[in-house]
Amino acid sequence: MNSFGRLFRVTIFGESHGASVGINIDGCPAGIALAEADLMADLARRKSGAKGTTPRSEEDMPEIISGVFNGHTTGAPITIIFRNTNTISKDYSNLVTSPRPGHADYVAQEKYKGYQDYRGGGHFSGRVTLGLVAAGAIAKKIVEGVTISAKLLSVGGRTDIDAVIDEVVAAHDSVGGVVECRATGLPVGWGEPFFDSVESAISHIVFAIPATKGIEFGSGFAAATMRGSEHNDAIITPDGRTSSNNAGGINGGISNGNELVFRVAIKPTSSIGVAQQTLNRETGQVEELVIKGRHDACIALRVPVVLEAATAIALADLLLVGKAYR
Amino acid sequence: MNSFGRLFRVTIFGESHGASVGINIDGCPAGIALAEADLMADLARRKSGAKGTTPRSEEDMPEIISGVFNGHTTGAPITIIFRNTNTISKDYSNLVTSPRPGHADYVAQEKYKGYQDYRGGGHFSGRVTLGLVAAGAIAKKIVEGVTISAKLLSVGGRTDIDAVIDEVVAAHDSVGGVVECRATGLPVGWGEPFFDSVESAISHIVFAIPATKGIEFGSGFAAATMRGSEHNDAIITPDGRTSSNNAGGINGGISNGNELVFRVAIKPTSSIGVAQQTLNRETGQVEELVIKGRHDACIALRVPVVLEAATAIALADLLLVGKAYR
Amino acid sequence: MNSFGRLFRVTIFGESHGASVGINIDGCPAGIALAEADLMADLARRKSGAKGTTPRSEEDMPEIISGVFNGHTTGAPITIIFRNTNTISKDYSNLVTSPRPGHADYVAQEKYKGYQDYRGGGHFSGRVTLGLVAAGAIAKKIVEGVTISAKLLSVGGRTDIDAVIDEVVAAHDSVGGVVECRATGLPVGWGEPFFDSVESAISHIVFAIPATKGIEFGSGFAAATMRGSEHNDAIITPDGRTSSNNAGGINGGISNGNELVFRVAIKPTSSIGVAQQTLNRETGQVEELVIKGRHDACIALRVPVVLEAATAIALADLLLVGKAYR
Amino acid sequence: MNSFGRLFRVTIFGESHGASVGINIDGCPAGIALAEADLMADLARRKSGAKGTTPRSEEDMPEIISGVFNGHTTGAPITIIFRNTNTISKDYSNLVTSPRPGHADYVAQEKYKGYQDYRGGGHFSGRVTLGLVAAGAIAKKIVEGVTISAKLLSVGGRTDIDAVIDEVVAAHDSVGGVVECRATGLPVGWGEPFFDSVESAISHIVFAIPATKGIEFGSGFAAATMRGSEHNDAIITPDGRTSSNNAGGINGGISNGNELVFRVAIKPTSSIGVAQQTLNRETGQVEELVIKGRHDACIALRVPVVLEAATAIALADLLLVGKAYR
Repeated sequence: MNSFGRLFRVTIFGESHGASVGINIDGCPAGIALAEADLMADLARRKSGAKGTTPRSEEDMPEIISGVFNGHTTGAPITIIFRNTNTISKDYSNLVTSPRPGHADYVAQEKYKGYQDYRGGGHFSGRVTLGLVAAGAIAKKIVEGVTISAKLLSVGGRTDIDAVIDEVVAAHDSVGGVVECRATGLPVGWGEPFFDSVESAISHIVFAIPATKGIEFGSGFAAATMRGSEHNDAIITPDGRTSSNNAGGINGGISNGNELVFRVAIKPTSSIGVAQQTLNRETGQVEELVIKGRHDACIALRVPVVLEAATAIALADLLLVGKAYR
Repeated sequence: MNSFGRLFRVTIFGESHGASVGINIDGCPAGIALAEADLMADLARRKSGAKGTTPRSEEDMPEIISGVFNGHTTGAPITIIFRNTNTISKDYSNLVTSPRPGHADYVAQEKYKGYQDYRGGGHFSGRVTLGLVAAGAIAKKIVEGVTISAKLLSVGGRTDIDAVIDEVVAAHDSVGGVVECRATGLPVGWGEPFFDSVESAISHIVFAIPATKGIEFGSGFAAATMRGSEHNDAIITPDGRTSSNNAGGINGGISNGNELVFRVAIKPTSSIGVAQQTLNRETGQVEELVIKGRHDACIALRVPVVLEAATAIALADLLLVGKAYR
Repeated sequence: MNSFGRLFRVTIFGESHGASVGINIDGCPAGIALAEADLMADLARRKSGAKGTTPRSEEDMPEIISGVFNGHTTGAPITIIFRNTNTISKDYSNLVTSPRPGHADYVAQEKYKGYQDYRGGGHFSGRVTLGLVAAGAIAKKIVEGVTISAKLLSVGGRTDIDAVIDEVVAAHDSVGGVVECRATGLPVGWGEPFFDSVESAISHIVFAIPATKGIEFGSGFAAATMRGSEHNDAIITPDGRTSSNNAGGINGGISNGNELVFRVAIKPTSSIGVAQQTLNRETGQVEELVIKGRHDACIALRVPVVLEAATAIALADLLLVGKAYR
Repeated sequence: MNSFGRLFRVTIFGESHGASVGINIDGCPAGIALAEADLMADLARRKSGAKGTTPRSEEDMPEIISGVFNGHTTGAPITIIFRNTNTISKDYSNLVTSPRPGHADYVAQEKYKGYQDYRGGGHFSGRVTLGLVAAGAIAKKIVEGVTISAKLLSVGGRTDIDAVIDEVVAAHDSVGGVVECRATGLPVGWGEPFFDSVESAISHIVFAIPATKGIEFGSGFAAATMRGSEHNDAIITPDGRTSSNNAGGINGGISNGNELVFRVAIKPTSSIGVAQQTLNRETGQVEELVIKGRHDACIALRVPVVLEAATAIALADLLLVGKAYR
């Protein structure tokens, strides 16, 4: 469903071309300074408009409609909405007839028996991550002392990212990328064994970010090629610092006091200008599909702030759970 | 915490060298034929003893102590316990003094302030996955029509797996591996958007399997190097078959009727016979540590059946959730 | 926290004198006809204005800002907000200095360390039940075939309710009442043993209705005075009809096919015009307090539709859970 | 389902005449002194054998099979099982043919389609509360400083309880009763508004106790007959003491620092020696049923310790949640 978290619990809602998208946060402690302005920096980072991102320019103005009073959180649920202002009114029913490859059009039609809001992907749209970014900005305030920072490592397997984007835009195509997230300042002991492990929590929320295809912590897939004598991180200080960080800051699902490091694989944006094949559900025939409209050539460009938000939300939840048991 | 699932809810418990390990399953539908014997095939696959696995040979005999009557599940919670019979009685307090690199010894000591059962890793032990395998055997019965199959793809980056194991055993070292899991027969529509996506659910439970460092679905990390025109899977039949399967059977978090495919990276077993450095918490000095005792040279060898179990549990839960909303 | 339900999950938010109150519903099946107009009848029943209710007249206009498309639910989360339009701007800080007896003023101040929205009770206000009523109207559509009906049985222990209200209003006082709720058409088998019993689910949500002091099912407290030979309901038909209904339609926590019957005790509105004693937190002295403003002389008058809503929500959730296990 | 609690999470399992009953506790903080012996006093109080209780005398010996090491909780899940040793082997299938009035026999047969363990009520048996009492003994240790005490107030509406029991036993009948529970030492601020109110949490778990028909807090149903001027509790000290306690120690769902007081109505034991009418499901005729075997004439006699346990579990959970948000 659309909620995540045990104690810092977010519920996302909204559709790409509906009235709004937004988020509800239940379990935010009272007394945190908060105003709409505090959300703007992260929301701006998520915003499209740069080369390789969609020209659609929503205002993305958050409105906090509950849970804040006198400039602080009250302990009651916080609801933040974003009115959709820049939706283009047109007939989207072709997305039902000719489901776009790589999109959720087909599965949504089957699962919701045609009742889904299919306009622009509806509730499956990446636009729903707006709420996530807003909640992430709040979560970052909760995980005080922890600095979370994500950046794009590569695009299309290359690090000359600008050049790749130019090529892809010219080809009316799209391209994937790898984003890395690091969190410093995490103390020892966050996370719970097994199902509330730091990896379980983070991967759970990260795969809610559309276009995510993989996640790896620390050495990640490279660990599968290594020997134990090479992979084990020697503990070298009483506060748990290790000589290397193949663990990515986690042992047994619990933060070990070293830097938290993980990477995610983002697939190429599914909407492309290149002609593709897809089933026409009315004719039953495979036909050529050319997608028009505004799209990101590389959605990975916009993922870092979303990934930071997801990480902050997961960590805020683990922090609160940990406080309960201390 | 130690539970997973919304409707098919498993709770694992137990310690490596305590009285028992086991699992509770709340939410198993009534009327499924079940006896201890039904669990034995999967438990045997998990069993150690082959080359590259620990010589410790527990009986691994499951005892179903609730929830089954007249050879069928009753709808009441099922509890399965495994008595630990082959624990070697000795002093394990050196694990507290000299925490093993790569293990949870250090974080457990910090998090539980010395109250953790540190013997053989205690509750952090891979032995706790016994319960998961038992529950997985039951979950497989629930996801009727779906066939889940996992296998080891590579070890130490190589596919001549036997040879690698020989080398590693000879070196008293350990080695990682990649395990792939496939599920066929999954209909369209399992999973929910965002936080209950198939990927979120599976990755959540998979990272509860000790030694997992990464997971990727379909094209996975390769997607980050691809273009959209290359990555998009063309839909070619009315029931949603696609010409390729870069999606790994999932769009928008929902199963699309194609084969579910994902891979996990398993790190090398942390316990090795090779001398390592670690902190002596009494002296405050970094000292040499040589781990004795029984260990797996390649824990990835034993992961496939655990991964199948985890997958079956996650899918059984999504199946039940999906039935509720139909 | 502010969520209820496992599969039909509601999250309430908002404050009496903040920007809005509202509700998020996650897990509403797709395909249910829904428009704002469908909520108006129940919202009107909740509305104040009749004798004995507060003269504050909010528009109580619901706005559905997500989850509905083409006049039907989409399967995505539904968010409904009510803008607060009729809040009177004034200084409410006296509620902090002189906490009103019977209200949450004192506990909110302690729990949230002064960060709570104290205006008109803030998030503790009965106004937050607006969202509950809206969600209840939707839940009633889900529990198709079940008719839920609540009514006021007595006020101040008397059934000449109009007369009691007149007396109480004249005395600037308030009075409690008993509300009974009945649901017909419930099939056998809703609810789960123990913690998801019909009684557990209903009582859980009913005690979220402000002013509720007690609940009893079927014979209720009278059962404590009865003998088994008198209390047991004889089963007389193959579909489970019983000759009496002391069980109130539930055995072992599960609906038994007979009418569901329960009653709740509603305390007198805490805000009264009569002078009371309370602590002045600044002076540390007990002082006289006279509460001014708009209040309900008998909040029980407005409870029936809220109780129906709460019941519908609990039953919708149990229905969905039950469908999963069938 | 069979779990309760967000952070101190109990899962009950087992059947009256199966291999065992028991409980799993996930989320018990590490470092609490615990041994089987600590559970015996409460288990003994629950035990049958006194006048008016069933002569069935199980050993009721708890076995802690996980989560305890060196005499303390480890932070890992605690599992406690009770082997059923005194089950009488016989044919119980008559409970299916002739469902006992007031019992769950009929609903269980319908809900689980005949797969339920029907022997002695199976999973619906009051015997399952054994685990609850064991978990309650642990929860009492967690809510340090809080003293929870329940007692029987009346039986059959009378306070000469011994005399009532004699009459009822002589008549081969059963009788209901009222049990009151009080908790002192509760600080201000436990519980959360609305769905995690103290009343919601307690009523949820209390209705899991078989035979419970009603619950009321503080003034309870009497509140419905009172005026506000009479019902409001004047706050008279800076730490929130009130001159009266109609609130039962709770305002707005939050503990207010005064004594927590509530009462529950327990119905007469359904199993009686007196002849009753019930449907014979084979013949389709209503026939006379005489129940043989061991039964409690007044189950309310054994409820106080179960009620204390339920209360302690609910409060322990609220305590942990509260700690998270501080």
